[in-house]
Amino acid sequence: MVKPGEIQLTEFPYPKVPPNAALVRMEMSGICGTDKHMFKGETEHPGGHGTTFPIIPGHENVGIIEELGSASKLEVEDRKLQVGDRVVPICDVTCGQCYVCRSSYGFNTSCLRDVGYGTTLSCKNPPHLFGGWAEYMYILPEALLAKVPDGVPPEAAVITEVLSVPFCGFNKAMSPYPLGKEGFGPGDTVVILGAGPLGVCHGIMAKMIGAEKIIIVGAPESRLELARKICADHTVNINEISDPERRLREVMDLSDNRGADLVAECAGVPEAVTQGLDMLRVGGTLLVAGNYIDMGSTPVNPQRQILSKNARIIGVSGQTASSYAGSLRLIRRFLQTLPIEKLVTHRFRIEEAERALLTAISMEGMEVVVTPRLNSLSH
Amino acid sequence: MVKPGEIQLTEFPYPKVPPNAALVRMEMSGICGTDKHMFKGETEHPGGHGTTFPIIPGHENVGIIEELGSASKLEVEDRKLQVGDRVVPICDVTCGQCYVCRSSYGFNTSCLRDVGYGTTLSCKNPPHLFGGWAEYMYILPEALLAKVPDGVPPEAAVITEVLSVPFCGFNKAMSPYPLGKEGFGPGDTVVILGAGPLGVCHGIMAKMIGAEKIIIVGAPESRLELARKICADHTVNINEISDPERRLREVMDLSDNRGADLVAECAGVPEAVTQGLDMLRVGGTLLVAGNYIDMGSTPVNPQRQILSKNARIIGVSGQTASSYAGSLRLIRRFLQTLPIEKLVTHRFRIEEAERALLTAISMEGMEVVVTPRLNSLSH
Amino acid sequence: MVKPGEIQLTEFPYPKVPPNAALVRMEMSGICGTDKHMFKGETEHPGGHGTTFPIIPGHENVGIIEELGSASKLEVEDRKLQVGDRVVPICDVTCGQCYVCRSSYGFNTSCLRDVGYGTTLSCKNPPHLFGGWAEYMYILPEALLAKVPDGVPPEAAVITEVLSVPFCGFNKAMSPYPLGKEGFGPGDTVVILGAGPLGVCHGIMAKMIGAEKIIIVGAPESRLELARKICADHTVNINEISDPERRLREVMDLSDNRGADLVAECAGVPEAVTQGLDMLRVGGTLLVAGNYIDMGSTPVNPQRQILSKNARIIGVSGQTASSYAGSLRLIRRFLQTLPIEKLVTHRFRIEEAERALLTAISMEGMEVVVTPRLNSLSH
Amino acid sequence: MVKPGEIQLTEFPYPKVPPNAALVRMEMSGICGTDKHMFKGETEHPGGHGTTFPIIPGHENVGIIEELGSASKLEVEDRKLQVGDRVVPICDVTCGQCYVCRSSYGFNTSCLRDVGYGTTLSCKNPPHLFGGWAEYMYILPEALLAKVPDGVPPEAAVITEVLSVPFCGFNKAMSPYPLGKEGFGPGDTVVILGAGPLGVCHGIMAKMIGAEKIIIVGAPESRLELARKICADHTVNINEISDPERRLREVMDLSDNRGADLVAECAGVPEAVTQGLDMLRVGGTLLVAGNYIDMGSTPVNPQRQILSKNARIIGVSGQTASSYAGSLRLIRRFLQTLPIEKLVTHRFRIEEAERALLTAISMEGMEVVVTPRLNSLSH
Repeated sequence: MVKPGEIQLTEFPYPKVPPNAALVRMEMSGICGTDKHMFKGETEHPGGHGTTFPIIPGHENVGIIEELGSASKLEVEDRKLQVGDRVVPICDVTCGQCYVCRSSYGFNTSCLRDVGYGTTLSCKNPPHLFGGWAEYMYILPEALLAKVPDGVPPEAAVITEVLSVPFCGFNKAMSPYPLGKEGFGPGDTVVILGAGPLGVCHGIMAKMIGAEKIIIVGAPESRLELARKICADHTVNINEISDPERRLREVMDLSDNRGADLVAECAGVPEAVTQGLDMLRVGGTLLVAGNYIDMGSTPVNPQRQILSKNARIIGVSGQTASSYAGSLRLIRRFLQTLPIEKLVTHRFRIEEAERALLTAISMEGMEVVVTPRLNSLSH
Repeated sequence: MVKPGEIQLTEFPYPKVPPNAALVRMEMSGICGTDKHMFKGETEHPGGHGTTFPIIPGHENVGIIEELGSASKLEVEDRKLQVGDRVVPICDVTCGQCYVCRSSYGFNTSCLRDVGYGTTLSCKNPPHLFGGWAEYMYILPEALLAKVPDGVPPEAAVITEVLSVPFCGFNKAMSPYPLGKEGFGPGDTVVILGAGPLGVCHGIMAKMIGAEKIIIVGAPESRLELARKICADHTVNINEISDPERRLREVMDLSDNRGADLVAECAGVPEAVTQGLDMLRVGGTLLVAGNYIDMGSTPVNPQRQILSKNARIIGVSGQTASSYAGSLRLIRRFLQTLPIEKLVTHRFRIEEAERALLTAISMEGMEVVVTPRLNSLSH
Repeated sequence: MVKPGEIQLTEFPYPKVPPNAALVRMEMSGICGTDKHMFKGETEHPGGHGTTFPIIPGHENVGIIEELGSASKLEVEDRKLQVGDRVVPICDVTCGQCYVCRSSYGFNTSCLRDVGYGTTLSCKNPPHLFGGWAEYMYILPEALLAKVPDGVPPEAAVITEVLSVPFCGFNKAMSPYPLGKEGFGPGDTVVILGAGPLGVCHGIMAKMIGAEKIIIVGAPESRLELARKICADHTVNINEISDPERRLREVMDLSDNRGADLVAECAGVPEAVTQGLDMLRVGGTLLVAGNYIDMGSTPVNPQRQILSKNARIIGVSGQTASSYAGSLRLIRRFLQTLPIEKLVTHRFRIEEAERALLTAISMEGMEVVVTPRLNSLSH
Repeated sequence: MVKPGEIQLTEFPYPKVPPNAALVRMEMSGICGTDKHMFKGETEHPGGHGTTFPIIPGHENVGIIEELGSASKLEVEDRKLQVGDRVVPICDVTCGQCYVCRSSYGFNTSCLRDVGYGTTLSCKNPPHLFGGWAEYMYILPEALLAKVPDGVPPEAAVITEVLSVPFCGFNKAMSPYPLGKEGFGPGDTVVILGAGPLGVCHGIMAKMIGAEKIIIVGAPESRLELARKICADHTVNINEISDPERRLREVMDLSDNRGADLVAECAGVPEAVTQGLDMLRVGGTLLVAGNYIDMGSTPVNPQRQILSKNARIIGVSGQTASSYAGSLRLIRRFLQTLPIEKLVTHRFRIEEAERALLTAISMEGMEVVVTPRLNSLSH
């Protein structure tokens, strides 16, 4: 992506890998809302970090270690790596030295000097290969890799980065005190606003950790249908039920008229926060997750929607590095019963990157992926 | 208060006290924002409970047990009570049977059938004495009393109800994980929006539990001056600095340019929530506390103000019953070093109740109290 | 049970049900370790409460509402009840007035004046029917019932009381901060010491809420085999591997040599705590759950086993009332995929109660139940 | 310290400071229990790390930056440093790459490859100056410094490392849910076992964060007297009351017969854990803090002391790096009202290091410090 709206196929030299770095042969790279935003010219990332074009897009990645520096320490849980291992590269590279990195635990995107593969790391400087829509990806010494457990195919592993957002969100929501009905606990009713990959991944995570009822509110019907197959107990089509009051009514009916225990905002639409607060029960929790580009404000009534409900709102910006490892463990655990790989509905070769982006923008599919080496894939 | 705007002095018969109830001879009753709202005709309380006039106002109460039923079990921590004990009546009477009471821990005002002394319990039915602006207050069998520790004067105990709101708010804010800089921890910087009794009580609580820097934003100067004497390290006068951007700048300068660890909204003004979110550091917490009447909405930017900051927002509606006991322990503990009784700037006899209300509305003083039996007070 | 070791069949009059009480026609009642202890004469319950013989045993109950007082408010989440509803009676009746009841949230067995159906409530006083090994059970006005969701058979609902112990334990373990690897989080490795109903229920709960690997350590093989069918990924037979060092080795091998994230002690054997601490990873959590009778002490090394590991130990005594409702929601949710009803391996009629107890003591089965009206059961 | 029991004065060359490191001119270095243990030959630190003699002891340090590499990033909250700034060096140097460093938040001593200034970093290799009992201390590029706030004298700053242990312990204890009486909350009663610097620092922290009642159990009387002057409301002299039952009685009397809300074990004596559990109220928390050398086991009764009490036990091994900054903020905050510098009862020059150690071992004083450049001190 040489500038917003312009995709171009380029060749870079095969890099030399020093002892503390690595090279990954790419298998698959997903398209995220952020990619769509950059393509449209919306390039200010959280924390004010900007995209410095040209970039190689692709931050939802999975591939195979092609070269591994002899002194490298790259695995996110310090497990042994070797050439041929399947890995998911952690897309953010944090400085480890700023106030946020040193004082708090682990949200990569909060690092004041955070740089991102596929988003803010320009490919103009050698060794260039700083994004997933490429045959190879260069792993910097300060970057991290998460080893993919045996048996997890690339179609499932490519979802790791997205799934780790709800992994962190639900973990945060758990910590107040679920026994006292403050924060998410097993058996709870979850409403998800947004039926894209992030929304459905919240549904998947909710199902993995014991939510009783999972309601996804979004569109189009094709996405909702897939959601019902994978994780949703109920869906509400916002194209069919365009009146927010009726959607609220539906959620109340599905929750003994109390409201949801947890609502996750995954639509990236500010007004969804306003509606989400109305859908909460007394003492409920609203997660605001993953809408990366500033889309403006929405009216919130502090007294009625927050205070008198004893509600909590939690921002979930990206994820921690170690949540990749946790998410991969869950993917492996639920391989048979929760077919996460079905989220991948469209595959394109690198040459078709622009078409891939347009398909993602059209919302006709769910997870659209770019497969640098289509032939090597198992299907 | 026979209806909004109309105060009237009335005599009720001295009640008969059954074995499971009690009678308290009132010493002092504070005026809360809720009283002002009801006087102005704003009578919808959180949860939609309404005021049924006539009422005897007064829910920030302290008095002496005059009669005690032999079988009563009224102390909030099950301590022994006897005639002559100083007590603070818990102002809410919860049903103990609704979904909220049975499933969650303890926010009285969240009870679906909550009734409140001085606010929603009408005095038209016998034994009538359901508010603090009276010589005696009747304690229902299902109500609770908090015993005042020895040495705590009524001028300090009358603040208990207000102080228990930040007691609960800071306790909630502590629970995520202060070590990982999520939630309030000792040594943190606290900004309070609002310089009335609720705001200053948040400052007092912050000081009691080890905040490093306490900044109170509000007006008028007389209140800020008192706040500085009791708990505030810095104050920002919103009459002098009317530009929100400059107020934000001031807070940033006082917090190493990071923003506050915790902001408490105690002004009851919706826009304060918008500004409060801007004042938060990455990972900070916003408490929305005690603004009881619906004052409308305010624009919130989910991406910039919540998500990309990893912020948390916590509603704090009233308090738990047991927080009265905790607050009283802290009042006693800090009797010498944190002169909470200085908050009481104006006293009026019951006959002067209307003037008391108008004084409270004028914001010229801090805590305005009604003293049913002025002569018995120690001063 | 007229005294330890002596079971006797008795007839009591059919009770009159006042407006605030109810009568439940029993379907099934499980046998708990506590029942075995009382039969052996070990009758001091937690908190020092004693059994006052004679009693009708049975506190893991499920039945059908036969009569319902018109003014009763018995459902634990305030849902509407009617005659014919299947319900699980909450086995503890708390006073609601002691220091513990008023100051803290919800552990029934911590109530200072707690009385228990089937354990400490004697049947010598009318209306006598205070235990589950009877045709009918009398529900006191201050007791509670949890409504069983549609479709949950009595064989599954009878496990509710046991399952609510790990429901509370895992909820407690979640609250510190799972993202920082303090406390249980999804994807974690769980070791359970003890393969009886309580142990297997911990395995079931761990599976319901997203544990990655579940290891059950216990005996005999028949129980471990059943555990593997329902929830265990690995089992360690303590009869075959009697050396604790070798069992520790096995757990380390199954956890990348780090130790388990969470260990639950469900064997009721003090030494299991010592071994459990050795099995924990740095920062891990040990639950000590449900071993109701004082079985003596075990050596613990504070520096090596707690401090230098940054470990946490959490006592889980019984459960909260509302956890029955949460557990029932999970049972219904996992009806198809986690066949909890398979735990019931033996059924006896009331006339065979003593044989039922001896079978439970023999450990040859898993959950042994008494079925007052065998014919009415669905199978 | 060339080997256990042998102290020797040595000269090392003045080091060359590369761009990413620094040199600190020492002002003061405290003596910790660990120093005493090493002197006695007890040299296995938590995690199994051993002391490699010779070492320069001293890990409770404060000094002035003498040289600062131009590219160094050493401040723990990323604040600007310059030559002449007073700093407290963080005593542990973590790898940042092991499983613990990457997966969890911040307990330095849990790092699998942790090395410690003054404890495990040998001085035999250049630049040698890896401990505080020296004129200068060399700050490695991967080490950290905490800037001392203006106005905090070295006598107070030297306590930072010790104080940061209770800073972390109380923060951990806060996180479950203080409102539900699980975990430490303001207004609570705290019992501390041990009257040495670690114990009194727990008392100081408890006072800073709003404990109502602080009871210190220990000896000798001189230490208890100092404790009462600084933070203790009550002390129990274990030499005078040698019967544990009577000490327990005393604590019960001081806590309305309920037991303490929180007990902190700071004596380093295993049996104290057994007694501490008996002193806890239902739902209370026991911190096991800072006893660094394995001193053996103690009997614990899981059913009576943990389970039936719903108790929690939390290990607190050392501290996080950022807790140094938090502790220093609290020291500055309470400079006037909580005279932490009074803990320093004895000062010795480096030449007197052996006498300093023997004085510390004698327990006649409280905090014994070594002052490399006595003349430069302000007194």
